[in-house]
Formats: sequence, structure tokens, C-alpha cells
Amino acid sequence: MLAGRNLISPSDFSPRELDELFALADDIVKDPAAYAHACDGKLLATLFFEPSTRTRLSFEAAMLRLGGRVFGVQSAAASSTSKGETVADTARMVSSYADAIAMRHFLEGAPRAATLYAGIPVINAGDGGHQHPTQTLTDLYTIRTAKGRLDHLTIGLCGDLKFGRTVHSLIEAMCRYEGVTFYCISPEELSLPNYIIAQMEAAGAAFHQVRTMEECIGRLDVLYMTRVQGERFADRAEYERLRDCYILDAAKMAGAGADTIVLHPLPRVSEIATEVDADPRAWYFKQAQYGMFARMALLCKVLGVTDGHPVTGARNHLEPTRTPAGDHPGHRCQNPKCVACAEPTQPPRFVEEGGRLRCWYCDQLAD
Amino acid sequence: MLAGRNLISPSDFSPRELDELFALADDIVKDPAAYAHACDGKLLATLFFEPSTRTRLSFEAAMLRLGGRVFGVQSAAASSTSKGETVADTARMVSSYADAIAMRHFLEGAPRAATLYAGIPVINAGDGGHQHPTQTLTDLYTIRTAKGRLDHLTIGLCGDLKFGRTVHSLIEAMCRYEGVTFYCISPEELSLPNYIIAQMEAAGAAFHQVRTMEECIGRLDVLYMTRVQGERFADRAEYERLRDCYILDAAKMAGAGADTIVLHPLPRVSEIATEVDADPRAWYFKQAQYGMFARMALLCKVLGVTDGHPVTGARNHLEPTRTPAGDHPGHRCQNPKCVACAEPTQPPRFVEEGGRLRCWYCDQLAD
Amino acid sequence: MLAGRNLISPSDFSPRELDELFALADDIVKDPAAYAHACDGKLLATLFFEPSTRTRLSFEAAMLRLGGRVFGVQSAAASSTSKGETVADTARMVSSYADAIAMRHFLEGAPRAATLYAGIPVINAGDGGHQHPTQTLTDLYTIRTAKGRLDHLTIGLCGDLKFGRTVHSLIEAMCRYEGVTFYCISPEELSLPNYIIAQMEAAGAAFHQVRTMEECIGRLDVLYMTRVQGERFADRAEYERLRDCYILDAAKMAGAGADTIVLHPLPRVSEIATEVDADPRAWYFKQAQYGMFARMALLCKVLGVTDGHPVTGARNHLEPTRTPAGDHPGHRCQNPKCVACAEPTQPPRFVEEGGRLRCWYCDQLAD
Repeated sequence: MLAGRNLISPSDFSPRELDELFALADDIVKDPAAYAHACDGKLLATLFFEPSTRTRLSFEAAMLRLGGRVFGVQSAAASSTSKGETVADTARMVSSYADAIAMRHFLEGAPRAATLYAGIPVINAGDGGHQHPTQTLTDLYTIRTAKGRLDHLTIGLCGDLKFGRTVHSLIEAMCRYEGVTFYCISPEELSLPNYIIAQMEAAGAAFHQVRTMEECIGRLDVLYMTRVQGERFADRAEYERLRDCYILDAAKMAGAGADTIVLHPLPRVSEIATEVDADPRAWYFKQAQYGMFARMALLCKVLGVTDGHPVTGARNHLEPTRTPAGDHPGHRCQNPKCVACAEPTQPPRFVEEGGRLRCWYCDQLAD
Repeated sequence: MLAGRNLISPSDFSPRELDELFALADDIVKDPAAYAHACDGKLLATLFFEPSTRTRLSFEAAMLRLGGRVFGVQSAAASSTSKGETVADTARMVSSYADAIAMRHFLEGAPRAATLYAGIPVINAGDGGHQHPTQTLTDLYTIRTAKGRLDHLTIGLCGDLKFGRTVHSLIEAMCRYEGVTFYCISPEELSLPNYIIAQMEAAGAAFHQVRTMEECIGRLDVLYMTRVQGERFADRAEYERLRDCYILDAAKMAGAGADTIVLHPLPRVSEIATEVDADPRAWYFKQAQYGMFARMALLCKVLGVTDGHPVTGARNHLEPTRTPAGDHPGHRCQNPKCVACAEPTQPPRFVEEGGRLRCWYCDQLAD
Repeated sequence: MLAGRNLISPSDFSPRELDELFALADDIVKDPAAYAHACDGKLLATLFFEPSTRTRLSFEAAMLRLGGRVFGVQSAAASSTSKGETVADTARMVSSYADAIAMRHFLEGAPRAATLYAGIPVINAGDGGHQHPTQTLTDLYTIRTAKGRLDHLTIGLCGDLKFGRTVHSLIEAMCRYEGVTFYCISPEELSLPNYIIAQMEAAGAAFHQVRTMEECIGRLDVLYMTRVQGERFADRAEYERLRDCYILDAAKMAGAGADTIVLHPLPRVSEIATEVDADPRAWYFKQAQYGMFARMALLCKVLGVTDGHPVTGARNHLEPTRTPAGDHPGHRCQNPKCVACAEPTQPPRFVEEGGRLRCWYCDQLAD
């Protein structure tokens, strides 16, 4: 049951729970007017401590189209965060006011930390370079809509696979379905980190690491584009030499399959030429629209408004998330971008993994 | 029919369409409660990439008082624009979420560009120094309310007539009515540009260019004040010498007609002395209020909610605006503040005008 | 009667009016759903020209949970204030759009100034270091809820009593109840200003100025914590020596009474150790929640929606607040942070007090 649940990591919902959520999204797409009052009287707090347009607007539009209300913070500067208020205190305070929280934060693990104090559903809208589960939800829902399924697909991921948060999430999520094949298209400098490769291997997914789009684009059900940023390259000349390989244009699209769809988390800058926009296989703007419907379904589900047992009242009296992690005194997370490192009062928590400790907030190995 | 229309330039609506809009505004003023649910279920996206208080608050209040909802962007810094997202992509994305867009942008022509991609009504809330059609709507509605008509009026425009966007718009709009006489009151350095004079001549409107308020204020039906800014003067001493001539105070008001009304687009700084505020002929604060009612009428009209054929559904499936302009390859807009110049992927477009090409976005002559 | 009233200073409402407001708050806490449409069709403008999270979110949640709508300004930078628009003009303009204003401003006296022009209820959400009456409302309501009364209580105030705006307000408010005893716990450098001591004396309230929490914590009904900031100390070493005395931790709580409650206006940084959070006597997060309910009651009362005579219409045609103050030409407020000093067009106003003049806006003695 999804009522009262948090969504911090893409894998927080099982494939069956995702199916349930996507089925609701289908129903909302079919008849949006029927849901125009589903969230009447409910308040969503959008706490965006990092700039964003699309994700925030997508959440706000989703809640408003359900008859709900939104309020919140649009930047860190104009808030108590600039006065040193912790994520924990912010979460406690806002949970007095709202029915659900969508949080984007520059500290990794901040939304996870918030779940310890909020007492209302917390949705991670992006935490630093760590995770962005509603983007993954958007991506999966779009693929499912285009292809009718999520199993037995061939997915190409192109661009910055080393730092690309949405790529890592999508691979992790697709590994849960049978028969997936991945083509990982990137410069060597920006290839997938080993731990993602390990995920694919552990899931028994087929995968190929290649350098060019041309060699595989004809075989793809889905081509997922991301941006190659010059700043990631130590050698600027190398970046200039490589960059055009990773720009999708009409010439490359000529080699794509008839049913290949092109996705991009947006904003795109130059990595998809505007001439591709008119191609019916360009699905990245539809993807943004499906993202709003996916978020509508998500909000309905975590607020329990469509399942006959809504979470009622101005304050939902839920127990803070029970964590199977432990304190492990003496150990500290070493990631300076993690909330447990940046905020001394945030209690450290670790999950044991094969004799090592992994930080429960940011997922990095500790010590 | 105004349903589904855009308002980018003041002349996008004919005088008859404006009459229709103002008649609705009258009805809303008379009985606002009757319209409190006219836009139930509708979403307005306010995309303000440049700072503004009054225009944005006026739009938000207008939509909220119609029972609609608002969401959006309040500054460029806290948005994807700072990540290089184009106006085109922003428009496409937001049109998945909203039913109408009110856009203020630092690039001239950005709202016009947005109409090519939005598929929902786009309202220009101010584009750089170019246009501000809802201010003109506000000005016309206020004049019509005070005087009972828009024809056969004598209008004084005072201050910075060279750079004053709202002055240019108002003159262009008033030229469409019979029997208008303009008094253009400014220092020589800030007199009307030739192309505005050409508009007045082409319309057969009478006009006088004068240096002081005193010589004509007694003859005016309307005195429209704008601010003379020191930054516009190369010679600071010249500015200091001149500035008091263009400040309206009680002494000058003593020479105004009994029914002269004073307007100002606000914010006013020093160009209207506060002692004038109590004068019943000071209409600039009522003007702000009528601006909200004019925007309420505008929103009802473009969303088609009061005309029996509402534009329904979460996404209005309208064709992008057909433009009579053409590409004219080889030609480029030279205005660095124009969206077609600042964004390389925005396709150039020109309108032919007497053997010359005028940029379709920013209205400047190309090449 | 509270309909149409402003709340600029905590003492603007009499103890009986506060009782009325708190009784309504109790009713809203008991059955929030019954009030979910109390403010349908009403608009609150939140004009926050200084950063804030908690106060703004508290107001927004309060209005939204009453079925009302909110819109406004979240920072000075993105508004006409940066273009020099006066508080007076902003108030006039916004009162065309909204039914009530909640204003936070960096200039002291700005909300008081706004009442001269708004024509709709103005609520001071904090003006510089001057006042924050809705925090006081929150504090009183929380104490009343915990203790069942506001008379015959022993209140400890700890930390920065010299500059602490909320401390001054709370003392001033509690002085109006019988039998109050104050323990003022601070370093000597940060002890209460003389004029607050004079208030306590004039009210016949018992008070003790002490240096440590330990010597009195066992006797307190309420311990109100505030932060000691290093910046207030000329001698940094002195600050470092003292600061731990004013940090509340579990050890100090061991000496507190069984029914002592701990309050803090938030955000707290280090002055309350997180180990105290789990103590049932830690009431500072409940305080934030009661603050929302207190604001809900406040909004219902000033908008007159629960008293059978709502203030109706898009614009409440109220007379500007009559002030018993006078102009006293020749006198000027000398406080550079006061609106009457910072804005030359804001007319000076003074209240006579024992042969001296006190600025009506910022309460400082003039000249």
C-alpha cells in the first residue's frame, strides 16, 4: 500500500507498486477532469533549496490539477536555511503545515533525513548529484506508454554516463525488468561507474559499452540522451574533439529504428539538435507532460486519496520511517556533500553491506 | 473571437475586440462575485524572468479572483533559464502543465517566440524595452472608464518619451480611435522617436511636441506621466537642470482642467509629488485596480470561459500561431537583445515592409 | 470587534480580544475541516521583503487551510522595491488586489506605515528588529494551551535579552496578565534594555535578572530560549567563555520542573541541544504548529468571516487607520532603519510621551 509512503530512492517502490501507480496515471490521462478534486483540501509543500524550473513546475501543476494547494520555498537564499536551520528542523516544522513534502536539496541524503522527522510523505525531488526518483518515474512511465511494457527492451543511454544521475537511476530501475539490454554510449572519460556496471551484472542484464550512437541506434527501442559538459573534461581540446559525437541530429536519426523513441530529462542545450524536434520519434516533450501525470498519480497514492483510505487531517500522524540501519558509533560519513557530514547534529546511520558500512543517507561507503 | 488567442502586441486585438473585452471588465467590476468561479480548474503559468511586482501580482490576483490557480517562476536566477534552457523549450514544457502563460522576459520577442511552441494562449507581460500590452490594456480601460469613451480625447504624455515603452504602446493604441490629439511633453533629449511620430502622422492624429506641462495641462483630458531617468542623459548637469520641469506637483495641477485625470504606469518615484495623491484627479492608483479587472477580462476571453465555448482539457490542442512572416535565409536580426539573436536555435523570421525586412520577434529593422 | 483590524504591535489587541481569538483557535484545532472553507474567495498578499521561511510558510498554510488563496513577494530583490517603490505605494497597489496583507520588511515601521494607505487589514509579519506580533500570538497561544491560562505563571527568558525582539514582545504581552514572574537569564552584556525593565516595573510584575539557567529552571512554568550570537560580543573570547552557559541540554533539563515547557521561536541553531528534542517538555515544534492555528484564527477574525459580518467585496472600503499621532513639523525620526527616515516621502508622525516625542512608526524617541 502506497498511502503514507515516502519516495526517496527509485527502488523504494516495488515493480508491482509502480504498476499500480502507472495504471492510475493512465486513468488520469484518460479523464483528467475526474481527478480535478481528488486532493481537495490537501497541501503540498515544495521545498526547493536548489534552482529548478521543470521539476518544481511539474509538481505544482500536478497538485493544482488534483484540486490541491501548493506553497513553499523556491531558493535557499530566501529562507531560514541561509540562517543555518537544519533539514531535520525544517522537516518537523513543515510537517505541521503540509500533507506532503517535495524536497530538492543541495545536500545528498537530505530528503532521506527528512523522513526521520516529517511524519508526512516525503518525496525526493533531487538531492545533489545523488538521486531524482520522480525523474525515473517519469522516464519509466513514458517508456511504458510508448512501448506498452517495461520488459524485453533495448535501451541506449548516451552522453555523460559517469555523472549522470538520471542515467544511473534509470539503469537501476530497468534492471528490475526481464530481458533488458543496455547500450552505454559515451566517451571513455565519461563511462559508467563500476558500481552501476556491477548492478547490471548482478541483475543479469545484457549490456554493451560503445563509443558512438551510429553503431547501435538502429537497434534501440529507447535512446536516452544526456548532456556532455565541458567542465567534466580535464583536457578542453579533448572535449572539443569529442562533443559532436554525442550530439543527436537528423543524420543520426536516419539510422534509428522506425519505433525508436528519443528521451531527454531536459533541459537540453545542444545535445539534441532542434531539427530533431519535429521527428515523431522525438518524445522528450511528451515525456515532460507524462511526468506531470506520473506525479499526479504519485501524489494521489502517497496521500491515499484514491484508495478508499485517505490519510486524513491537517497532520498525518504517521510513525517516522523505521530504518534497519544502525548508528555504528565511531564511524562517520566522509562525503562532504552528505547531510550527515555537513550538519553535525544529523545522527550518522549506516547499512552493513558485505562487511563494509554504507551511509544510509547518501549511499556512499563510509570511512 | 478571443478564445485561444495570444496577446503579444497591443495591436493584436482589434478595437472591436477591445470593446468586447472592456464590456466584460465592466461586468466583472459591477459584480466580481459572479465571476469567482469563471476559471475554476484553470491554471495560469506566470513566467517572470525579470523582476516585477505589480504586473505579476496583478496577474496572480486576477486569476485567483476568477477561481483559477497560478504557479510559475519569479526570477531568472532560480530557474533552468540560468542553465541555458531556450524560450522555445520552456514554452513547450510549460504548455504541458498550464492553460495559459503570462511571460515577462528580458529578451525582446521572447513571448512572440513562445507562441510558436506553446499551443496555449501566451500573454506578453513585458519583453525587455519592447512591449507591455497588458499595461496598454490597463491604460485604455482606465481612460474609457473615466471618460466613457476612447475617441475624441486630448492626451498628454510626459517624461521619457524616447525610451518609454508604455508611452509608445499607448500612442499606437490611441491612434486607432478618431479625433485623438497628443501633447508630447519632454526634454528635447527624450522626445518621441521618429517612427512613433510617423505612426501618429499615418493615423492622421493631431500632435504637438512641447517642453513644459504648464503650456498644455489645462487642455488635457488625460495626463500620462512617466519618469525621466538621469541615466538617459549623457550630461548629468543637464539632467539636474531639467528634471524639475517634469515633476508633477500641486502647483502644476492647479493649471489642469477640472476633469483632467493623471495616470502613471507605476512605480512612481519622484515624478509625481505625493501631495498630488489626494487630488481627486489623481487616478494612478485606481489605474492599478482597473488593471486587475482588465486582466480578469483578458483571462476569461483567451480561455474562452465566458463565451460558451471554453477551451477545455488539460492541454488546449491549438495550432501554433501561423505567421505570415518568412525565413529569408541569409538575413539575421542584429538586435543583441532580441531572442532571435541571443538564442542561436531560435529560427529567424522577418516581415517584409516596403522593401525592407523587419524582425518578426522584436520589430526592429534587420541588417 | 476584530473585523477589519490591523495587527502591527502585540498590544494592538486587548487581552479580551486575544481570548476571543484563542477561543477560535481552539475550535479550529478541534475540527479543522469545519473551517476548510471559511476564507473561500479571500486573497492574502504575503509581502516578504526580507527572507523568512517559517513565518511565511505558516501564514500561507494558515490561509490555504481556510480555503483562501495566497500570492505575493518572497524577496526584495525580485520586486519593484529594488526600483525604489515606497511602502505607501506598494500598500495602495496591493490593497486593490488582496483582502489582507501580511508584511515582513527590513524597515522598522513599514507595516505601520502601510496601514495609512491599505484600506484592508495589515498584519506585521516582522519589521526589522522592531516587532513580530504574530510570533507573540504564537507564544501566548502555546503557553495558554500548555498551561490552561496566561495569568500566575513563572516565565524564564534565556539568551539574548538585549536584542531579542520576540523576548521583548513576550514580556510586554505577559505583563498584561496578573501574577506573572519573570526570570531573565543572560550574560550581563545581553541583559534586558532599561525600557523593558521599566515596563515590568510599571506593570507590577516580579522579575529576577540572573546569569544561569540552573539557578531557576526548577521554578519555571515556561522556559523561552533564544540564541546568543557571537556577533553581539565585542570580545570574542568572552563569547566563547560564556556561550555554553546558555545552551540547554539534557543535563540542565534534569533540573527543570516536571511541567516546565521549553519554547523557542525557531530556527534554533545550537542553543538547544538535539538531545532535548525527545523530552516531552520540549514544546518548540508544537509551538510552530500552534502558530499556524493562531494565524488561522487571526485571519478569520480580521477578515470577519466567522463573526456573521464578513468584510465583503474585492476591496474592503475601510477608512485608513486614524492615528492619534501628529506631524510635529521640524521634528524627524533619527533611526536610519525607520521607514520615516529611509523614505523621504513618508510623512513623519509622533506620539507625545511625557514631554518627549516618540516616532509613531518605529517607537524610538525622536531627536
